[in-house]
Amino acid sequence: MSPAPHQAIASHSDGAGPHGYSLPLSPSGRSAMLTPPPWHFSGDVIMVDYRVDPAAAAGFLPPGLTLGADPGAAAAVFAAWQWCSDSGEQLSDPSRSQFSEFLILLGCAYDGAAMARCPYAWVDQAVPLVRGWVQGMPKQYGAVHQTRHGLAGRAGSRRAEGGLFAGNLSVHGQRVVEATVTLTGPAQEPPALHTVPLVHSLVTPAWTTPIERPAPLAASEVTDVEFDNIWSGKAELEFLDALDEDFTGLRPVEVGAGHVFSYAETLKGGRLLPLLGE
Amino acid sequence: MSPAPHQAIASHSDGAGPHGYSLPLSPSGRSAMLTPPPWHFSGDVIMVDYRVDPAAAAGFLPPGLTLGADPGAAAAVFAAWQWCSDSGEQLSDPSRSQFSEFLILLGCAYDGAAMARCPYAWVDQAVPLVRGWVQGMPKQYGAVHQTRHGLAGRAGSRRAEGGLFAGNLSVHGQRVVEATVTLTGPAQEPPALHTVPLVHSLVTPAWTTPIERPAPLAASEVTDVEFDNIWSGKAELEFLDALDEDFTGLRPVEVGAGHVFSYAETLKGGRLLPLLGE
Amino acid sequence: MSPAPHQAIASHSDGAGPHGYSLPLSPSGRSAMLTPPPWHFSGDVIMVDYRVDPAAAAGFLPPGLTLGADPGAAAAVFAAWQWCSDSGEQLSDPSRSQFSEFLILLGCAYDGAAMARCPYAWVDQAVPLVRGWVQGMPKQYGAVHQTRHGLAGRAGSRRAEGGLFAGNLSVHGQRVVEATVTLTGPAQEPPALHTVPLVHSLVTPAWTTPIERPAPLAASEVTDVEFDNIWSGKAELEFLDALDEDFTGLRPVEVGAGHVFSYAETLKGGRLLPLLGE
Amino acid sequence: MSPAPHQAIASHSDGAGPHGYSLPLSPSGRSAMLTPPPWHFSGDVIMVDYRVDPAAAAGFLPPGLTLGADPGAAAAVFAAWQWCSDSGEQLSDPSRSQFSEFLILLGCAYDGAAMARCPYAWVDQAVPLVRGWVQGMPKQYGAVHQTRHGLAGRAGSRRAEGGLFAGNLSVHGQRVVEATVTLTGPAQEPPALHTVPLVHSLVTPAWTTPIERPAPLAASEVTDVEFDNIWSGKAELEFLDALDEDFTGLRPVEVGAGHVFSYAETLKGGRLLPLLGE
Repeated sequence: MSPAPHQAIASHSDGAGPHGYSLPLSPSGRSAMLTPPPWHFSGDVIMVDYRVDPAAAAGFLPPGLTLGADPGAAAAVFAAWQWCSDSGEQLSDPSRSQFSEFLILLGCAYDGAAMARCPYAWVDQAVPLVRGWVQGMPKQYGAVHQTRHGLAGRAGSRRAEGGLFAGNLSVHGQRVVEATVTLTGPAQEPPALHTVPLVHSLVTPAWTTPIERPAPLAASEVTDVEFDNIWSGKAELEFLDALDEDFTGLRPVEVGAGHVFSYAETLKGGRLLPLLGE
Repeated sequence: MSPAPHQAIASHSDGAGPHGYSLPLSPSGRSAMLTPPPWHFSGDVIMVDYRVDPAAAAGFLPPGLTLGADPGAAAAVFAAWQWCSDSGEQLSDPSRSQFSEFLILLGCAYDGAAMARCPYAWVDQAVPLVRGWVQGMPKQYGAVHQTRHGLAGRAGSRRAEGGLFAGNLSVHGQRVVEATVTLTGPAQEPPALHTVPLVHSLVTPAWTTPIERPAPLAASEVTDVEFDNIWSGKAELEFLDALDEDFTGLRPVEVGAGHVFSYAETLKGGRLLPLLGE
Repeated sequence: MSPAPHQAIASHSDGAGPHGYSLPLSPSGRSAMLTPPPWHFSGDVIMVDYRVDPAAAAGFLPPGLTLGADPGAAAAVFAAWQWCSDSGEQLSDPSRSQFSEFLILLGCAYDGAAMARCPYAWVDQAVPLVRGWVQGMPKQYGAVHQTRHGLAGRAGSRRAEGGLFAGNLSVHGQRVVEATVTLTGPAQEPPALHTVPLVHSLVTPAWTTPIERPAPLAASEVTDVEFDNIWSGKAELEFLDALDEDFTGLRPVEVGAGHVFSYAETLKGGRLLPLLGE
Repeated sequence: MSPAPHQAIASHSDGAGPHGYSLPLSPSGRSAMLTPPPWHFSGDVIMVDYRVDPAAAAGFLPPGLTLGADPGAAAAVFAAWQWCSDSGEQLSDPSRSQFSEFLILLGCAYDGAAMARCPYAWVDQAVPLVRGWVQGMPKQYGAVHQTRHGLAGRAGSRRAEGGLFAGNLSVHGQRVVEATVTLTGPAQEPPALHTVPLVHSLVTPAWTTPIERPAPLAASEVTDVEFDNIWSGKAELEFLDALDEDFTGLRPVEVGAGHVFSYAETLKGGRLLPLLGE
């Protein structure tokens, strides 16, 4: 019933100087680093289900979120993305339309609805990094590598029994996460934590005014979700000792199944979640 | 009389969940990508004075700013930085404490006071990029290279007569700006556009709510400014044809003197500039 | 009848100090940057047939090679590779087993046999770069980007009618080549220039002794060639003006069809081609 | 009395097809990735003296070299370089003329003359990497970071008492070496291992013919050596556990003094060292 989020975020000139959806503002608005949503994403994903200490997970949940039905459920996700805006123009320059991402998901709930919380994420391009901050998604810069999907021959990895898919993350020249998935068979269903809305905190670092506490919660609004060619198998997942103790607190206490699939979605905007009864 | 900006931006826990000066929020606050200001900067700078079409410059000024006393005054600045927070801990890992930057400055005025407007900036590290957005400074990702200062021998460039200093910027694998300065002698004064406050627009891209228009203006508050070993000379400056027409509108109509110097400052925070009489 | 090339290149210790297939030499030989062949390659390829001025092509052919049956035939090739040695161990770390490549092929002949000459190639990883020099293949460092193959959704590109595949090359922050292929239908045959042996010049830059002139010719010996899911379509190809005039001499005088396919091969070694009748 | 090495390595056309000092060969020779020597280098250096197990060092010495007068003497060297050929043209594009390097030096002797052996080296640019292989210097690709020298202000490091200089090396996203030097005073003499010739093994990986064993030895011939503003102090040096056991064998058993200085040299070529009496 409410207007689509992206209708609220037009950035046309109103005669009041340089403009744009984001910095840099410019006379025509065309210099903005970010195009306004919707943003269309297509990617190949390697995902490992795992479990964390529920108390550690709870420490990452802001007021309004609870651990939900399965306390300690978590996932580590490697994704190799292409993205474009409605015009599709980014696809003609793959140096602009591609990035790789690693993120952690924690199962949680808001007002009884299952959601996922992303406590940490890393990407290797600046545009998706800043787009993350617009959403409240804590994207930092990292080197993310994962096996290519579907190559022929002896050095290729196919979605077939025995197929080996590996991913790793390095930050500032230090290895942080390593994972492998060895496929055992096709899956009927997408992995659960990849099917629920992400809920982020809209944090604006204090500059001229104090920071707002707690930061407002916003859920991602996505459409046109597509899962393709899902396979599952045995997984390994290791957190190496390169970051701080808060990150280390989310290391696996148990590693579950691994999954490999193609995925697409359109991210239309964010929906504010009111702080309920507190 | 007002409290120092950084006193307003503490981010200690208040028992209300994960916290931090910026994303990512975490139980202890230590995972934040950004340390709170003050931020201390030390760098080597190559700067070229030039002139733009004043009408083009005016198109980049939001309500509240005017072209000031010298319409069309501009500068192109290459800087190789080290930075640290008060603890200085970043300096023990130069993979974290260094970045390179290219930016353009336009002369302007607010309420009669000379300031500089930065319509475009590029850096090669994510932390200063995001820190830019906190300030309203439009930092994007680019590959920035400049001559090293002070090396001995035939492949070195010293601040001496005839010393050659070059800089260039590439964005997504396309060369955007090239500059050289050939030194003729030491300078008594720092170049004017590097001595006035920067005035930025605090733009928050619309996500759950519409964008604020016009964006609030904020001036950088810096202390402990230090200029060292300033030399000047003849400059060349060229904008290549790789970005949009708004950027191209700021290309040089006349190239002035070049300058090479060391510079340090402490950036303490931002000061809101009220929108006067409009 | 001759022994397989890789049998000649064992690098086991003979009690005569540090050893290895390549630098760095070390006590066990394990520090060598290069593993000995065979090297297994699996990749996704975007290829554009084009024509060059035959006289320009001839200027890149050393004594012993002629332009062959189709003077001026050329191709521009973007490839996204995974590779491994016989052990396959590289595949568990995709930061080591992947690279992207752009190269130019010129049709030529040796002693009546059709071959291809690679006058220029660029890769984005050091191991394949140095491996190129071992073969006489002139790999330099460049940033190579191409559309990912087979992603689902609106930002994905599939091998289907209308599928758009783009590639580009940048060198030292300057764009050098841009290409696109828009698919029209599946192809029955692989593109001709990708099916003939490569013939390289084994150039050793002079250091303690003068350079050998002309450099010996060597043909690549490959097995286990696999083409998969070949599609063709309309192509665009542009060389931008960033390198020297020799390179520019190979710019397209006519652009032909484009091709997209998966490819695998095993590179076993090189075979010396005697300099015939001169 | 012998001709200068660089006189032997001209690469002018002799009418026998494409030519050049190195690959790629081209009609005019201008496309060669490497310019012929001499190569002029200017850099800022952080160097840590340390000691290795002499038996481990001996394992890296080929026939003809001995441990010399001080078995186990070693150094870890971080250098931030600019380079140019005789024309100096590279200096106008700092994206081409700069690189960073980390290397290890082991004290050794040839025929009674003190020399240094470099068992491992890493650089962050392809041109110096391949130039290393021409010399027999085992340069691999790594991310090398070191403190900038001489910056003003609180985030700057000056060559003065208490000045902190740090360096680190990462390879494929894994941290390999970390070092710091805290300056205590100026030094009268350059550190010994930086003043003797380097002796390399001219290794050509087998391709069409078997590898030559043992590889010929060549000593670097340098002129115009310049040390400037040498300071020394207390050092820390740590090898992390990311590479193979051969590398690990050279880890410090004792850490000595650290040194910081500017350095320049001209590398003219290599001189073959005959294999004496064996």
